[in-house]
Amino acid sequence: MVNHVILPEPTLRRLPWYLAYVEILKARNVEYVSSTQISRALNVDASQIAKDLSFLSLKGKTRIGYEVAALVDTLAEFLGFTTTHKAFVFGAGSLGKALMQDSGLSIYGLEIVAGFDIDPQKTGTRVGDVPIYHIDTLAEVMQQSPATIGILTVPAECAQDTADIAIGEGIRAIWNFTPYRVKVAEGIVMANTSIYAHLALIYNRLSAPV
Amino acid sequence: MVNHVILPEPTLRRLPWYLAYVEILKARNVEYVSSTQISRALNVDASQIAKDLSFLSLKGKTRIGYEVAALVDTLAEFLGFTTTHKAFVFGAGSLGKALMQDSGLSIYGLEIVAGFDIDPQKTGTRVGDVPIYHIDTLAEVMQQSPATIGILTVPAECAQDTADIAIGEGIRAIWNFTPYRVKVAEGIVMANTSIYAHLALIYNRLSAPV
Repeated sequence: MVNHVILPEPTLRRLPWYLAYVEILKARNVEYVSSTQISRALNVDASQIAKDLSFLSLKGKTRIGYEVAALVDTLAEFLGFTTTHKAFVFGAGSLGKALMQDSGLSIYGLEIVAGFDIDPQKTGTRVGDVPIYHIDTLAEVMQQSPATIGILTVPAECAQDTADIAIGEGIRAIWNFTPYRVKVAEGIVMANTSIYAHLALIYNRLSAPV
Repeated sequence: MVNHVILPEPTLRRLPWYLAYVEILKARNVEYVSSTQISRALNVDASQIAKDLSFLSLKGKTRIGYEVAALVDTLAEFLGFTTTHKAFVFGAGSLGKALMQDSGLSIYGLEIVAGFDIDPQKTGTRVGDVPIYHIDTLAEVMQQSPATIGILTVPAECAQDTADIAIGEGIRAIWNFTPYRVKVAEGIVMANTSIYAHLALIYNRLSAPV
């Protein structure tokens, strides 16, 4: 495991771009890639790329660059995509169900082991392979089939309470898809995927006078 | 329409938080809210909130604050959530299908009118209410049922080509869910929802030595 360096957020945003790009090169049987090449393809400064990649214990060769296959493997492992991380989804509404059915997430190391809701029409059912439980049974489920990541897709008005309950039962990271700004104690990992903020950004830029 | 001010990205990220919060207050029949109150609830500096809200043509009253109902309406309209914006989804894989079935997006003004794929098993079918067409028929579909936003959920290796085709047929904004860093010409709106980068962030922070 190389993944115990706390990386800056901008680096963590860029590394998956490099991975996606070198995976394409690998599929095309390209053997070596230089940071200049990655730079041209992705519009990122070459020195920035070299700096980002320096966090990995992988050296490029002068003039030849990085070995593509090794770069793919090292990046995927370094980013945690080759390890399985267990997660619960809180809220089995349309977005929650969508995430439970998105098989793409497992490629990136995320295994959704259970969903939680309060709607009796939903609890006791399954979404794909994922069983849906009542939130009141969280402690039990956590004991039988523990998870570290809690994915929040509940209505905004329940976001804070649900996060508090999840953390109280041992969830250590909250991935928040709600538009509500959830507060967590220090030591709890928090990531916001602000779908609505991105929509607002698109609408705002589209409305710009040309 | 008030929505022709080009807002800074951080403001556009925070305004949906305020909206989610004041919507909760409105549901609880709260009449007025001050920026200090929003500040305490969301952990955002009160002067920052006042500054962000100053982009809206809405004044708070001294000591009483903002009228909650008016703030909800103004924010929702200002962010473009009360106007319908038409979108195509490119790639009817698990994430693409999930977005087509996520009824939550329509609440925020996004109407997905068609999906595109190249798989003959998918083209000609529907996902929920959304018809799936072959990408080769994009020009026709665009003429009959135009859209301005293209949501990219294709495999990373097709992301750039698909974006180029979409923009060539008149798409003006790309909402990129792929891990590939797509390049677009100036004047084309680009928003990245980096699901994989957020996963990488969570994994990295979770692996931190306690």
